[in-house]
Amino acid sequence: MFRGAWVPRAARAAAAAAAAGFCTTAAVTLAQCDAPARSPPPPRAAEATSAAWDSNWDCRALSARQVASLLNHAWPIDDYHEATRRILREHTSKSAEQIERVIAEGGADPAALYCKAYRRYAYGGAPVRHILLVRHGQYEEQRELSAHLRATEGARWLDERTFRRGALWQSYNEQQVLTPLGRKQAEKTGDRLAAMLAPQLAAGGREVRLRVSTMTRARETAQIIASRLPAAVEQAPPDPLLEEGAAAFSVPVGFAEADDVHYDGIRIEAAFRSLFYRALPRKPEAAEPRRRGAPRHEFEIVVCHMNVIRYFLLRALQLPPEAWLRFGGFNGSITHLRILPDGTVKCDSFGDAGHLDLEETTFGSKVGWER
Amino acid sequence: MFRGAWVPRAARAAAAAAAAGFCTTAAVTLAQCDAPARSPPPPRAAEATSAAWDSNWDCRALSARQVASLLNHAWPIDDYHEATRRILREHTSKSAEQIERVIAEGGADPAALYCKAYRRYAYGGAPVRHILLVRHGQYEEQRELSAHLRATEGARWLDERTFRRGALWQSYNEQQVLTPLGRKQAEKTGDRLAAMLAPQLAAGGREVRLRVSTMTRARETAQIIASRLPAAVEQAPPDPLLEEGAAAFSVPVGFAEADDVHYDGIRIEAAFRSLFYRALPRKPEAAEPRRRGAPRHEFEIVVCHMNVIRYFLLRALQLPPEAWLRFGGFNGSITHLRILPDGTVKCDSFGDAGHLDLEETTFGSKVGWER
Repeated sequence: MFRGAWVPRAARAAAAAAAAGFCTTAAVTLAQCDAPARSPPPPRAAEATSAAWDSNWDCRALSARQVASLLNHAWPIDDYHEATRRILREHTSKSAEQIERVIAEGGADPAALYCKAYRRYAYGGAPVRHILLVRHGQYEEQRELSAHLRATEGARWLDERTFRRGALWQSYNEQQVLTPLGRKQAEKTGDRLAAMLAPQLAAGGREVRLRVSTMTRARETAQIIASRLPAAVEQAPPDPLLEEGAAAFSVPVGFAEADDVHYDGIRIEAAFRSLFYRALPRKPEAAEPRRRGAPRHEFEIVVCHMNVIRYFLLRALQLPPEAWLRFGGFNGSITHLRILPDGTVKCDSFGDAGHLDLEETTFGSKVGWER
Repeated sequence: MFRGAWVPRAARAAAAAAAAGFCTTAAVTLAQCDAPARSPPPPRAAEATSAAWDSNWDCRALSARQVASLLNHAWPIDDYHEATRRILREHTSKSAEQIERVIAEGGADPAALYCKAYRRYAYGGAPVRHILLVRHGQYEEQRELSAHLRATEGARWLDERTFRRGALWQSYNEQQVLTPLGRKQAEKTGDRLAAMLAPQLAAGGREVRLRVSTMTRARETAQIIASRLPAAVEQAPPDPLLEEGAAAFSVPVGFAEADDVHYDGIRIEAAFRSLFYRALPRKPEAAEPRRRGAPRHEFEIVVCHMNVIRYFLLRALQLPPEAWLRFGGFNGSITHLRILPDGTVKCDSFGDAGHLDLEETTFGSKVGWER
């Protein structure tokens, strides 16, 4: 099972594992084959990839000077521990004893502790940002019309399908309406989202926004979802940055033409940066009650397109976006990303379609989960 | 919104996009802050990562010589096109005209066409392998007991929790039983899987196997799932390779101790290699009807643990495994990976928990999807 010598230490350890009594079930061998060709194996992806993490990926990691400015504290700060005490006195109900414990357990970098105290406690603490990415329902794809426009309209069609959405594009887009099944998917996805968010909205002071791409299939889906959500959900105007496109080339090779990536890529990256960022503590409005202690959350429901969602997923997790076609994602599925106040990003689910019956599961025109 | 000069071309294009009429909704600025600190920004993850794809990741990409051996064809092959015609004549119902079309459209590498014809057509074609990774239900975590054993048992406990599962480990493991909610989750997950697989099993000639880790919480979950599945599902013996552990270090820093990774890592990698591989065409049993044309599928349901599932996901997609803690995954959730006969791997969903009611959603002891 462990062929090739590229990780000899791994192979030895695996042999040790087998010797130590681990059964190796499902051992599938190629014993029936001849010896493999003699050429050396290609470099392994496990060696080529890297798991770096840029902790200031959104350019929102605040310096101590920025925190001081936001709090109207004196600058420069001579005594960071005293400045941290001041944040805790001004923004928490902690006793003097509790405050001293925070200082004592704060580690060796007093300036970092000051910034952390701002993030955690100022104005009730920075909220967790939840991004709920929803793929539109199944729609009339109009592939023949698209091929016809590509073949007959040349540069004009390139222009329309990249930056400038003219009458030709509009007419095409308007014909890409949801199928009856696509509308059913949107209803069920709306019901699931309503159930997810009802307690949040009932708790008060929690923000939920509904965003949508300008494309017909997304707007139809968002309209159906909105009809299932509480009225308190804020609906943002349709956003052309969120339209479908080819955000990156694909490795291994998949469809993504150079002209599409050249234009779509930068637009979808702009959409990413407008949506994905850590929350900062926020001065409450005069009338707003000051919240202490309870964790805060805010929610963005984003009804858009699978290529956009796959790109967002990989960008947010700082994984190579060129891997986007290694992910699928059914119509009406929900992808849940969380951005914590310290900039950590987590994917709780990708392409969750468990709220749909199996016969309602589609990937484009293909019905069924199996593919 | 586009701060810093690290991608000036991107920034220019984004400015162009804005000028071309894309509204930039949700523009969040740090205008209220001072200028950022002067130090140069750290290297970007997008530059540090790489999306290489090793097409022979499972060492199962067959050479033309291996195909010839499997088919008892003469070797060496002088005329690959004639050999391809022979595969198509022997294994398909294609007409002579259709066969010539396959040859004509086969591209510039006749040996590759020969291998591809083997994979697609020999013995009905190689099946798509579906790996359905299921996280066990919520359980009694026994964290205090674990801490006590770590503190009091030293090297013995290290030995027990890595390679050699002795009486101490067994006693600890047996106390980690499902909670009532965990059993409920397992029932619902079993019902969902039964619905997914019933048509497959009814179609005949489709293989479904149920695999499970040796740990109590996984075995209890698998037992409940099995009680909901058709009797035709083959149950493999519990597999110690699939037990929970720390398969890799975490970037950014998370919990994963060096001794755990040293031992668990190689065991879980062995589990990966025993489960993840492309299917090859398979000679039918004498009594088995020869299937022509219909796509073939086989299914592995694997009831195991979230660290293992996150590691499998990243390894299968050839993304850096050290990113595993960037993924969550609720109890009872289903992760669906597909391995195509050409070695392509797709993630259709990760951590799908939509079949659970929201109040049944847990991540360990934490109840609720929001976190």
